[in-house]
Amino acid sequence: MNLKKYIYDVENFPKPGVLFRDITPLLNNAKAFKYVIDELAEFAKKVNAEKIVAPESRGFIFASALAYKLDLPFVLVRKPGKLPREAISEAYDLEYGTNAISIHSDSIKKGERILVVDDLLATGGTVNAATHLAERLGGDVVGLAFVIELKALEGRKLLEKYEVNSLVEY
Amino acid sequence: MNLKKYIYDVENFPKPGVLFRDITPLLNNAKAFKYVIDELAEFAKKVNAEKIVAPESRGFIFASALAYKLDLPFVLVRKPGKLPREAISEAYDLEYGTNAISIHSDSIKKGERILVVDDLLATGGTVNAATHLAERLGGDVVGLAFVIELKALEGRKLLEKYEVNSLVEY
Repeated sequence: MNLKKYIYDVENFPKPGVLFRDITPLLNNAKAFKYVIDELAEFAKKVNAEKIVAPESRGFIFASALAYKLDLPFVLVRKPGKLPREAISEAYDLEYGTNAISIHSDSIKKGERILVVDDLLATGGTVNAATHLAERLGGDVVGLAFVIELKALEGRKLLEKYEVNSLVEY
Repeated sequence: MNLKKYIYDVENFPKPGVLFRDITPLLNNAKAFKYVIDELAEFAKKVNAEKIVAPESRGFIFASALAYKLDLPFVLVRKPGKLPREAISEAYDLEYGTNAISIHSDSIKKGERILVVDDLLATGGTVNAATHLAERLGGDVVGLAFVIELKALEGRKLLEKYEVNSLVEY
């Protein structure tokens, strides 16, 4: 399936000079969405993932359906202040300034085989931080899965220790 | 299944005096998550839903797996400034101040049977606004589905025109 048909290019969003890849048409097409989840599931099975971890909020969309399909547990990675119980956080650099994400401290058991899922691999900062959080809790990160990869931003370099899978490259 | 076993009560979150219902343990248990999605799917089938609409970001979690299971399209309702193309917005009241949510203008066709999904029914403000957005685009909102309902906040009163389903009541 040519997924690019369902990913719209939007110029100058969220700011001038940026080309945004809009996945909402893909979600709004049941066949395309099903294809994406089934493809992500093939990778998850290949790496024997036992648990899905994903950052908010577009990561939730793909991780949740994937966890459901594979009968796997699903752990949320959220912005600070969103998780109600004891959590650990990791900061990462943005183009301007820094960001941080958190995970509940009791959400991963030692040695669990973790697949980290997000919609888009750009510079890799968010997923790298999510991966570190999972590892700090004892998780064994066996793969990183994305729908879209923006090759020019070289996110794979930052994530070179990991098995990375993406379905659509730009 | 007793879902309350997988929903943790957290006192004084996000602010003093509030009792937060934490669904992350439910997501982190594959059987409980599957049970929830399968129950939501029974309701979706009963009302003959053709499309799932959900607000960010916890709504995405349940809506996405549900859309996948039922082979239905899924439309995101997001905070203003998050959707890249032409969108309509709806403001709604919070305890202090107001909030707003948006939907892409091309996301719903006239007469489509819409199920609105969210994790929690409290006062109903968010889902009421999401429902209005779907209707302004010509959608026929055939049901509103929640995992948790906080009865004391009387969200059903605001939503009395609609068929409301929730899986766990407090």
